[in-house]
Amino acid sequence: MTENFDAEQWAATSRDIHEITQLKYRYLRALDTKAWDDFADCFVPETTGDYNGLVFDNSADLVDYMRNNMVEGMLTLHQAHHPEITIDGDTAVGHWYLQDKVIVEAVKFVLEGAALYTDRYVRTPDGWKIAHTGYRRTFEQSYSLEDLPSMKIGGPGTATYADN
Amino acid sequence: MTENFDAEQWAATSRDIHEITQLKYRYLRALDTKAWDDFADCFVPETTGDYNGLVFDNSADLVDYMRNNMVEGMLTLHQAHHPEITIDGDTAVGHWYLQDKVIVEAVKFVLEGAALYTDRYVRTPDGWKIAHTGYRRTFEQSYSLEDLPSMKIGGPGTATYADN
Amino acid sequence: MTENFDAEQWAATSRDIHEITQLKYRYLRALDTKAWDDFADCFVPETTGDYNGLVFDNSADLVDYMRNNMVEGMLTLHQAHHPEITIDGDTAVGHWYLQDKVIVEAVKFVLEGAALYTDRYVRTPDGWKIAHTGYRRTFEQSYSLEDLPSMKIGGPGTATYADN
Repeated sequence: MTENFDAEQWAATSRDIHEITQLKYRYLRALDTKAWDDFADCFVPETTGDYNGLVFDNSADLVDYMRNNMVEGMLTLHQAHHPEITIDGDTAVGHWYLQDKVIVEAVKFVLEGAALYTDRYVRTPDGWKIAHTGYRRTFEQSYSLEDLPSMKIGGPGTATYADN
Repeated sequence: MTENFDAEQWAATSRDIHEITQLKYRYLRALDTKAWDDFADCFVPETTGDYNGLVFDNSADLVDYMRNNMVEGMLTLHQAHHPEITIDGDTAVGHWYLQDKVIVEAVKFVLEGAALYTDRYVRTPDGWKIAHTGYRRTFEQSYSLEDLPSMKIGGPGTATYADN
Repeated sequence: MTENFDAEQWAATSRDIHEITQLKYRYLRALDTKAWDDFADCFVPETTGDYNGLVFDNSADLVDYMRNNMVEGMLTLHQAHHPEITIDGDTAVGHWYLQDKVIVEAVKFVLEGAALYTDRYVRTPDGWKIAHTGYRRTFEQSYSLEDLPSMKIGGPGTATYADN
């Protein structure tokens, strides 16, 4: 393909793809660290969401839902892989492959799953923002910690070492 | 390194690396969604495979094996991380670090593992294709769901929410 | 942003970011394959480390600790996601989102966790090296294999197939 390859054009496209990955990582880091202002900053007001049927038609409702439901003591992991991002001027579409985990020790609940994300992004004077985010589960497992009586769970900042 | 850095050359190389990541993500997405035509489209006819000793000497056999063994009700996760891709003209070598999971509820079987992939890629008029794919396990765990009687498993499109 | 976009500058920056990802992947691959010489080669002598309170003030001590504690029969997974890397001349800062697992069958110990990495990198005549690496856990689970009597564990090179 290199013969009619436009290095200047690819540089601009690859920069946009890079900036959208940085937005996505910020969104997921903010979610798992419960940094709700940083989380809210990833969206435009009219952002829509559809998390496998959990639907939002504006970013305020989406952020409020997360803020209210991702309570203290709920430990979450949301890591998105396999970015497939297509830039079209000032908009873009992104496909990602999520792996997530939710642990709520108080109710002995653990969830592990995966999902395919389809996002839309929009370029704003303030950088790329999420215009739509949503996923469809590929699978989901959940179980009770009653089945794993030996399980020890530590929250942020706790760690065990190989020599302990 | 910047002093003798060729921006034009790097742009072409980075575009090739990018396109190979897109191929790999398509291959894994097709595998986990059982989209066998898309899966087959990632290979050339002479593609070879070696999944830790499960060997194939052409892509038709590799695709048939997956189609026949990744049956309905088998839930799989294959996520590849840490791309280390080297371009050499119209061929390339890629190293990846896989994390995978296989769930077959009907036989109460769960497998979780990881592996180091070494792929070879070839540039074709139709874009980059996989010429060889293979991995070697770093570890593998498997267990019976009998040990986790509380486990609930949902397939594609099923989801539990934090407030349920 | 494209209007005052400097393609040449972005090419150099994106190449540095790419090289730092390659360094990080080499570091983690060396760790999980216990390739201690390759692992040591990722650092400068004065590299510091802080793995959630497990602190090192030079690379020799850090490498010795890993070499002595990641013993034969300890199976580990360390995969780093979501690179957020900022280049500043010949130094750089990188944020990553780790997922890790440690299995020590001999003592029936399994650990699964995640952490946010903050690394510093330095450009040397020998390429980018890690000047500081450290993380803070977001969560950690550990349990005894006594709770999963059916669990089978295989080390490097062992594999089960869908049709077995």
